[in-house]
Amino acid sequence: MFKKILIVGCGLIGSSILRATIKKKISKKIFILEKSKKHINQIKKLRYSCEVLKGSEKQIPKMDMIIICTHLGEYLKIFNKIEKYINKNTIVTDVGSAKETIFRKIKPRIKKNISWISSHPIAGSEVSGPKFGNEKLFSDKWCVLIKDRNINKKHMKILSKFWVKIGCNIVYMNFKEHDHIFSITSHIPHLVAYNMVKTAMNFEKKKKSNIVKFSAGGLRDFTRTAASNEIMWKDIFLNNHINITKGIDLFLKNMRQIKKLINTKNEKKLIKIMQESKKIRKKIVSSKQDVNLPDFGRR
Amino acid sequence: MFKKILIVGCGLIGSSILRATIKKKISKKIFILEKSKKHINQIKKLRYSCEVLKGSEKQIPKMDMIIICTHLGEYLKIFNKIEKYINKNTIVTDVGSAKETIFRKIKPRIKKNISWISSHPIAGSEVSGPKFGNEKLFSDKWCVLIKDRNINKKHMKILSKFWVKIGCNIVYMNFKEHDHIFSITSHIPHLVAYNMVKTAMNFEKKKKSNIVKFSAGGLRDFTRTAASNEIMWKDIFLNNHINITKGIDLFLKNMRQIKKLINTKNEKKLIKIMQESKKIRKKIVSSKQDVNLPDFGRR
Repeated sequence: MFKKILIVGCGLIGSSILRATIKKKISKKIFILEKSKKHINQIKKLRYSCEVLKGSEKQIPKMDMIIICTHLGEYLKIFNKIEKYINKNTIVTDVGSAKETIFRKIKPRIKKNISWISSHPIAGSEVSGPKFGNEKLFSDKWCVLIKDRNINKKHMKILSKFWVKIGCNIVYMNFKEHDHIFSITSHIPHLVAYNMVKTAMNFEKKKKSNIVKFSAGGLRDFTRTAASNEIMWKDIFLNNHINITKGIDLFLKNMRQIKKLINTKNEKKLIKIMQESKKIRKKIVSSKQDVNLPDFGRR
Repeated sequence: MFKKILIVGCGLIGSSILRATIKKKISKKIFILEKSKKHINQIKKLRYSCEVLKGSEKQIPKMDMIIICTHLGEYLKIFNKIEKYINKNTIVTDVGSAKETIFRKIKPRIKKNISWISSHPIAGSEVSGPKFGNEKLFSDKWCVLIKDRNINKKHMKILSKFWVKIGCNIVYMNFKEHDHIFSITSHIPHLVAYNMVKTAMNFEKKKKSNIVKFSAGGLRDFTRTAASNEIMWKDIFLNNHINITKGIDLFLKNMRQIKKLINTKNEKKLIKIMQESKKIRKKIVSSKQDVNLPDFGRR
């Protein structure tokens, strides 16, 4: 399908794309651009057939596709480094979790004939780095492709085929829709998890109790989400801050309401809120967005 | 070890105690008191050797131990029904998740010579009912036993042995300590999860987007916790409302701070908060309070 693919940033997502691309024989050659020596060593140990670029090649290979898998905060810097691998046939994509703010910054900086179509595969985990990568990470996961003015339709078709080939189901959105939806299904849940763990830690210091020992009562689920990569999430929070701020305000308002219901012993309304919340779980499981086992099937 | 044990309320926890007690041959006879016909039918289908009491027995069996596994809100009503099965040798215990408020109400109502020692096994799940019970539910889980004035020490020893026999590790606390610690490790995390899901639903109605479809980005973890039994949690929230209110206030304060850090682009402090939060996850996994697999090991 491709002759040359370049993966920029080879952590959990980048290395999973590497694995899946090799497994599905999608490209003759795969190149890697990665600044972390630790990551490069891990990739080399995995003995995948790929070439780690040093950036000082005499013969600059022009890529069929470039997939940027770094943190959002590095996009501008990265672009200066990868421009030389791009010609008019190159499809550029990224896998970032927030879109509008960063693309408003990037667009004026890149040449008009460069074809950048943004992607967001809804896959990931609390762990980071190439050693945790997995060729099946994208199996049955949604991948959002961003529709925008002047997009190269032929490239969109090829990119869409690529994600399908490595397991994804495609959904199309514009920048605004994407950032709206993921603020509530992903960004605020992460922020809330970090805040819950921070609050528990404040509490522990004050009371000298042991929150780790008794975390199985509910807190431990939050600690998993709050163990996600802090640079990645700082970038997401800053790059979708308007939607996130609105979501936080709605969350705070609801929380003050629940607090009031508890303190006025309003059993009926409390039960109603919880009954409503329960319905979503069934929908998520029946839509195969989570495992159909109590407690995530963990033992 | 025992001749007669009575389990009052045979849902997830009660039926798991039933299963574990049979498996470990802890009692010659096991009796069940359960008001839900649906639950009784499920228990009968499981064909466990136990006797479901109707409350109208001519010969009233006096129990060696009674374990109350109903919702907190039923304790007072239940006590009137079980009094006839109690004599001076009977150990009464319960498995409730909140202690101080309910026991302040119960104590004046029960005879002084009744030996009620409160327990709290830190085990459970988002699913309810006897069909989800599991003989291994208590394996390697903490069980809190409540120290109080005038407790029968011999009974405490026997009760402690019982929980150890079905898999628990014992920890002793007083009412106040218990309610403090579990407000932050369990009650507020549940309340926050319900509130997160409620907020997402409010958002969905407004934007007509599909939060179920894209829940894999983080929200789905919250929906599991928020799928827990609403009557049980209403009772817990009301019976530990002072600690929970304090915790909510701390949570809200921290959340307003994070919102401010995002809107002032304070990258350094945001990263620091997230780095601190990550540390807890490692401690929880190394203390064997959660599975040592990314994403809870779910596929």
